[in-house]
Amino acid sequence: MIISVDLMGGDHAPQAVISGVRLALNKTAPSVSFLLFGTKDALDAASAEFSEADLKRVSLVETTEVIDCEEAPTAAIRKKKDSSLVKAVESVANGVSDCVVSAGNTGALLAGATLIIKRIKGVKRPALVTALPTVKSGYTVLLDSGANTDCKPEYLSQFGIMGAEYAKANLDIADPRVALLNNGAEKAKGNELTKQAYQLLEASDAIRFCGNCEARDVLSGDYDVIVADGFDGNVLLKGIEGTAMSLFKMLKEALYSSFRSKIGALLAKPAFRALKHKMDYSEIGGAVLLGVNGGVIKAHGSSNEKAFMNAILQAEKLINSGMIGTISGYFAAQQAENE
Amino acid sequence: MIISVDLMGGDHAPQAVISGVRLALNKTAPSVSFLLFGTKDALDAASAEFSEADLKRVSLVETTEVIDCEEAPTAAIRKKKDSSLVKAVESVANGVSDCVVSAGNTGALLAGATLIIKRIKGVKRPALVTALPTVKSGYTVLLDSGANTDCKPEYLSQFGIMGAEYAKANLDIADPRVALLNNGAEKAKGNELTKQAYQLLEASDAIRFCGNCEARDVLSGDYDVIVADGFDGNVLLKGIEGTAMSLFKMLKEALYSSFRSKIGALLAKPAFRALKHKMDYSEIGGAVLLGVNGGVIKAHGSSNEKAFMNAILQAEKLINSGMIGTISGYFAAQQAENE
Repeated sequence: MIISVDLMGGDHAPQAVISGVRLALNKTAPSVSFLLFGTKDALDAASAEFSEADLKRVSLVETTEVIDCEEAPTAAIRKKKDSSLVKAVESVANGVSDCVVSAGNTGALLAGATLIIKRIKGVKRPALVTALPTVKSGYTVLLDSGANTDCKPEYLSQFGIMGAEYAKANLDIADPRVALLNNGAEKAKGNELTKQAYQLLEASDAIRFCGNCEARDVLSGDYDVIVADGFDGNVLLKGIEGTAMSLFKMLKEALYSSFRSKIGALLAKPAFRALKHKMDYSEIGGAVLLGVNGGVIKAHGSSNEKAFMNAILQAEKLINSGMIGTISGYFAAQQAENE
Repeated sequence: MIISVDLMGGDHAPQAVISGVRLALNKTAPSVSFLLFGTKDALDAASAEFSEADLKRVSLVETTEVIDCEEAPTAAIRKKKDSSLVKAVESVANGVSDCVVSAGNTGALLAGATLIIKRIKGVKRPALVTALPTVKSGYTVLLDSGANTDCKPEYLSQFGIMGAEYAKANLDIADPRVALLNNGAEKAKGNELTKQAYQLLEASDAIRFCGNCEARDVLSGDYDVIVADGFDGNVLLKGIEGTAMSLFKMLKEALYSSFRSKIGALLAKPAFRALKHKMDYSEIGGAVLLGVNGGVIKAHGSSNEKAFMNAILQAEKLINSGMIGTISGYFAAQQAENE
């Protein structure tokens, strides 16, 4: 297996990315190799960090351009053809590599994946898949968590199928419970999109559709896959992240507000750490872009070395699971049926 | 001032509502009177709870029907004309009362308010306004948090104006910072609705528009008013509520997982309580429906007596603020300009 890594993407690039790769070398199977894409300076820094033994599994590819996080996505990938992001994506498109990991410009990575790696035949829109920790100590898969806006009902129906495949492969759930993010429980609830998507999901033989899920119940662990338009999925995801961050901040302030509670906080510290760890995105890795002909993982822009390591481990798991092949197979069979 | 209260709405009705009114009697100004709408049994229970002195400020109005939370809204208000909800709403429409408070069927309350109390002339859609506690110990106002779906850009522009008025009157903020809920910071971000709404909000002289706000930053305290389509606003609101509930649950489990942390939890208990109190919707009261010709407050369906008391205090504050008149004046002036 070969994993391509964009050394230049993310707030702490390239150092955090390089360190992430180094950590991942110890945790991935020996058969996993890496292609690192970056500027000459970044590659020099990388060379300094890796041992001779490491370099047997790591190849360095020099690129001359860098896409900023502010740049308009499609224009960027068209203009900066020699950027680390574009070159890394191309390596997956041409089969040299199995998966690309990048914390760079999300729009550019998505545009690159869609235009260069291309969609699996039959898939209308690829979706960003994010795993959320639940109160039952498991995970729920949310998609689309931000790749598309103004989705059509059929896209959501396909998200259900891809999400179920992800849950089977990644969470070992035999028959994932799929729900539609909505603002009420009843079938007729929501906006035009959800009303139509509900009907398509309900009619699908391929998934175990359980009806609507309100945003309040997403972390309950009652569902394995939550389907949503990319804009709404992103509001939900960022809303959950922001609330968790704000609550931890408010909790810290409340705990340091008196001597008594400071002592309490000290004693309870391991418990807090465990909880913060659970909610910590850097533990989870990145978001997988499902629906294109190769592995694509978008790591959080503010990823540190641990987050990069986890994104790489996620890439290994993604490719080992064979889910991209399974999804391709499903849509190919659908197409054959429809002809 | 007269406040109409629907005794039959909510999971713990009528007892929690009756108790809420009783608590509110001690906290509202002596000039505030109440009209309680409910079945004979509910009114009997109410009579038993109030003293002679209380009953000088409380009138009981018997209604024979009850709208369930499952009923289709518009059909319900058309069919059950003698329900507590419809009668309470009518009392505001015909000027007998200044404000209605109900924890009943949200759709029915919204439909009743729109069809019976009617929109302020010039307002396209009324919006549910919810106050969210921020990390800076203040509040941010979110609208629309669930009254409408499939909003048009102009509705969001109007939400900005009404929300700013609410923030001025309720949060004493002279020049509220208004932001648009979106999935990125840049102006061109989001879906078709947000792209167009951004332009309208930016062009408005009436508000201090600060650009986009990502869901992650809603509780930051950096904005006073957040504008969103009702579906998205509801996903955000319910997502925040659900995350807070889940985190407190996970925190409790983590804290009881060892003897040491249990001791820590005990010592830190007052700090936790203070934080939970801050996030507790029952402290905040209900959501105000802004944009109709009278006060309408939707209390949370699971409201307890304290939540009902707070919803009533919110009603008193709403009417005292005169914001409905100010909003009406603004739209009347707009209409005059356009003619």
